Amino acid sequence: MKLYHKATLPEGFTAAAVASGIKKSGKLDLALLYSDKPAKATCVFTSNKIQAAPLLLNKKNLKANKLYRAIIINSGNANCFTGQAGLKDAQETARLLARALGINKKNILVASTGIIGKKLPLDKIKKAIPHLVLAISKGGINRANKAIMTTDTFSKEATVKFNIGNRAITICGIAKGAGMIAPNMATMLAFIMTDVNITQPALDKALRTAVDNSFNCITVDGCMSTNDMAVVLANGAIKNPIIDFNNHFKLFNSALNLVCLELAKMIVQDAEGSSKFIKIEVGGLKNSQEAKKIALAIANSNLFKTAVYGENPNFGRIVAAAGASGVEIKEKELKIKVSPLHKKNIDIQVSLNRGNASAIVYTSDLTPEYVKINAEYN
Amino acid sequence: MKLYHKATLPEGFTAAAVASGIKKSGKLDLALLYSDKPAKATCVFTSNKIQAAPLLLNKKNLKANKLYRAIIINSGNANCFTGQAGLKDAQETARLLARALGINKKNILVASTGIIGKKLPLDKIKKAIPHLVLAISKGGINRANKAIMTTDTFSKEATVKFNIGNRAITICGIAKGAGMIAPNMATMLAFIMTDVNITQPALDKALRTAVDNSFNCITVDGCMSTNDMAVVLANGAIKNPIIDFNNHFKLFNSALNLVCLELAKMIVQDAEGSSKFIKIEVGGLKNSQEAKKIALAIANSNLFKTAVYGENPNFGRIVAAAGASGVEIKEKELKIKVSPLHKKNIDIQVSLNRGNASAIVYTSDLTPEYVKINAEYN
Repeated sequence: MKLYHKATLPEGFTAAAVASGIKKSGKLDLALLYSDKPAKATCVFTSNKIQAAPLLLNKKNLKANKLYRAIIINSGNANCFTGQAGLKDAQETARLLARALGINKKNILVASTGIIGKKLPLDKIKKAIPHLVLAISKGGINRANKAIMTTDTFSKEATVKFNIGNRAITICGIAKGAGMIAPNMATMLAFIMTDVNITQPALDKALRTAVDNSFNCITVDGCMSTNDMAVVLANGAIKNPIIDFNNHFKLFNSALNLVCLELAKMIVQDAEGSSKFIKIEVGGLKNSQEAKKIALAIANSNLFKTAVYGENPNFGRIVAAAGASGVEIKEKELKIKVSPLHKKNIDIQVSLNRGNASAIVYTSDLTPEYVKINAEYN
Repeated sequence: MKLYHKATLPEGFTAAAVASGIKKSGKLDLALLYSDKPAKATCVFTSNKIQAAPLLLNKKNLKANKLYRAIIINSGNANCFTGQAGLKDAQETARLLARALGINKKNILVASTGIIGKKLPLDKIKKAIPHLVLAISKGGINRANKAIMTTDTFSKEATVKFNIGNRAITICGIAKGAGMIAPNMATMLAFIMTDVNITQPALDKALRTAVDNSFNCITVDGCMSTNDMAVVLANGAIKNPIIDFNNHFKLFNSALNLVCLELAKMIVQDAEGSSKFIKIEVGGLKNSQEAKKIALAIANSNLFKTAVYGENPNFGRIVAAAGASGVEIKEKELKIKVSPLHKKNIDIQVSLNRGNASAIVYTSDLTPEYVKINAEYN
């Protein structure tokens, strides 16, 4: 299994991006991911009770249909808290793209990211779609990965290649996210494409596992988005003997895990205003849920995060956060190790003494720059 | 009922403070509150699972004994995460004070606030106690209120006076707190003295209600402390006919509520690095617990708090925070009103449409200054 920090599209996939004018800066803001033939789709969505219009539309479609040809993503506008009009805008986006591609609108997934509560400028999308379709190419992924960015400072991309027998399988993912990042899900979009041939239940299960071990293990500011989605399209183009729970599932699952974890870590590395990448490992618990609860409580503590920013070994804040996590903790069983704080990568190890379960969570420090970026974002 | 933003000790109470050297700055750091005769005590403690040594000691004492003569408080050191040695230091502090005052050590409450995980410098306290006892006076409260401060920029004090028949009752409270403020409890210490004559069950109930409506309705950074406590001493010096649940309870309760709410608001006004005082009112719910859950989710959202700091009317962040609160919310029933953001006092009104229950929470904005203060605090 080989990992590349670069997007290389699998067999049968192409992509495109244009600047439609949604972003006032004139940067790329409309992306298309396209599969030559119908691909099985699986999705995980935010658990926020308020969900953006594209998510509502996708959820409805996914109930009836699991085969998809395209994903259209706009940045600069979240199309969230926009009511019935927003839902119509998402539907119309899919309809316009379907017409331009000559496919059924039910085979299209829609995603949006950006400011909440503003009407989607549908006229701009309408004008841009013909250009978007004309731009489709194998190399288009290197523009699509930029078109999904908002406050991101670099594009997040990862490709894993591995073999099943003599078939070379590719899993390629791009993601966006830098703030409003909390587990369940982190505020992010992740689009993963693979040419593998796999059953729907195995694909569903693999994504859920991978998300739990990656995007649900990162937090920047504990703020949960309304627009998060992670999606995998598997088009079977490589024609390997089909993967199911009894055949090569573990291999595919670990490859998908790897792509998701790399993308998740990149999101934390790009956390708004951050100066440190922090890994928090909590061990010695009876079950991993408790370990994750403690790790997340530490990761979301503003006081802990400012202490790391200040390179200030104030480990009392780790104690206070762990104690506030809701997990029963006795002072005398709590052991804490902190790596040198003057480095960029910080390791925090918290161990208790009541079992073998553990969890890892990734986060960033809290800096004056984070406050400035988010005071101005609109 | 009259409210004064100044501490005036009730009948039978005196106070004192000295600089013992725990704070390297040489500022006041050891305070004593003293009652001429045994006073009934009631306490509420932090719900953090890690609790500082003084809290463990007080809890043990309160099981056996409800009558107290004195509270000794040090700032600059939390005596938390200090194990058995820390517990002994708290006990020894009480023993030394008891000897100097000529009272029983079981009639003394102990409190600490400051850095977590460092040994209490008992030698400094030992040397300071004779000076502390010599300094006892009615005016000593104006030094005690400063001696309990850590990152506070002003002392928090409130006095309420009211009559029962022809008896003039006084309730006087002092508090500290500026950061590590989250509900259950906020990171704070509050010491309230009254000369009223009241039954123990009525006193217990009144403090619990008052704390729920005040200290448990404020949040600065969502970080829950290990050292919080709120205590009321009621010495009965005014010899009013005893208050119980059937006699004047409502009057006393509302007076105590008022003292606690004023102190709680002052803590938010002094929130580390803050530039705005934010009131969040959530209404139209079926029960007030749900309303409070939504209000707190908004109040603890870093993205909401930075938007207020930036005077940036990004109300999508209120929507996202409300949706992430765990309460089932439908987009179309959510109404949001925000007062002009260029002012110092901000009112946020969130209303749903499913009932008459509401809740109010107070918080501050998140500023680069908050990050700087907490990056350096050690």
